[in-house]
Amino acid sequence: MIELEIRTARHRDMVDVTRRLQSALRDENVAGTGTVTVWVPHTTAAVTVNENADPDVQHDLLAGWEAMLPDVRFHHAEGNSDAHLLASLIGTSVTVPVVDGGLRLGTWQGIYLVELDGPRSRRLWVVPSVVTR
Amino acid sequence: MIELEIRTARHRDMVDVTRRLQSALRDENVAGTGTVTVWVPHTTAAVTVNENADPDVQHDLLAGWEAMLPDVRFHHAEGNSDAHLLASLIGTSVTVPVVDGGLRLGTWQGIYLVELDGPRSRRLWVVPSVVTR
Amino acid sequence: MIELEIRTARHRDMVDVTRRLQSALRDENVAGTGTVTVWVPHTTAAVTVNENADPDVQHDLLAGWEAMLPDVRFHHAEGNSDAHLLASLIGTSVTVPVVDGGLRLGTWQGIYLVELDGPRSRRLWVVPSVVTR
Repeated sequence: MIELEIRTARHRDMVDVTRRLQSALRDENVAGTGTVTVWVPHTTAAVTVNENADPDVQHDLLAGWEAMLPDVRFHHAEGNSDAHLLASLIGTSVTVPVVDGGLRLGTWQGIYLVELDGPRSRRLWVVPSVVTR
Repeated sequence: MIELEIRTARHRDMVDVTRRLQSALRDENVAGTGTVTVWVPHTTAAVTVNENADPDVQHDLLAGWEAMLPDVRFHHAEGNSDAHLLASLIGTSVTVPVVDGGLRLGTWQGIYLVELDGPRSRRLWVVPSVVTR
Repeated sequence: MIELEIRTARHRDMVDVTRRLQSALRDENVAGTGTVTVWVPHTTAAVTVNENADPDVQHDLLAGWEAMLPDVRFHHAEGNSDAHLLASLIGTSVTVPVVDGGLRLGTWQGIYLVELDGPRSRRLWVVPSVVTR
């Protein structure tokens, strides 16, 4: 298992981690075909896959999730239940195709760490289910 | 990795791909027990698992997602940020149990490609993490 | 593939299944590093990962999802389309890191079966993608 550290910059944020994941697979000499599971070991952050071309898409995703938050009186004393709620909808991990040791994504796809209660330093766990040389 | 091509018929659509996935595993002589990751290499489509018996469920899912879309002024010039938003909530892939080389699903479960900005021709990548004969 | 049976207690409910999953991996002598896929073979229940410390978080998640449900006239005659809708947003499964045969989770993470149309008896399928002794 590989651990990456990702710095987020705002309260809600999306950080493109695709290149860092590619490098991590290369550094660990991952080879062969299979999948890699990218897991965020936090409960107020998430991982998602979406468009990597126009940064407006990331803006719109964050704005859209914000606007979907319901007007509920939450009980959790830390006051960040909105972050927990979005984390469980967006998801704690993605399992991504790997071909010849590299991530295999669609043309416009990038992998994003989604910060929902930052800014903070976050970890990302990377677990390949392919042959390791 | 196996690639399937799926034709969608409407702007929002759900296409049951369960049989095509079963055939693909058979054609590729996938054997053994493990999982298969079903991945949509697009950012305005998704993959989900839901009821395959009553077509009203698919109607209700599409109607429900539509009604959940927030009234936000999106920036992305292509005008399909609603599709990107739902794609990241429904999810880009599913990782499904495989037993003796075949998909293992609950009685009422089917696997669906969810079209969010169609109609189009979509691809589906199928990555088994089981023994191949 | 391991099958667990989980009893839920309310119409909407979250049941922490982390310990039962850990025991199941131990009982089956799962060893090595990789992932395990936890799959709910139902279409009105889901699996998620979230905070296991303060039970208020589970309360807030259930209250939040409830409040996000749109006011739509559903067609499905069983009257539980709201449960199908949330199931596809929260997700049918999670694929979790395994290190040395045990679940590897963040400090505050627990794995939850999410009941959306109970109370009922539910099944959970556990598919390790790691070496078995």
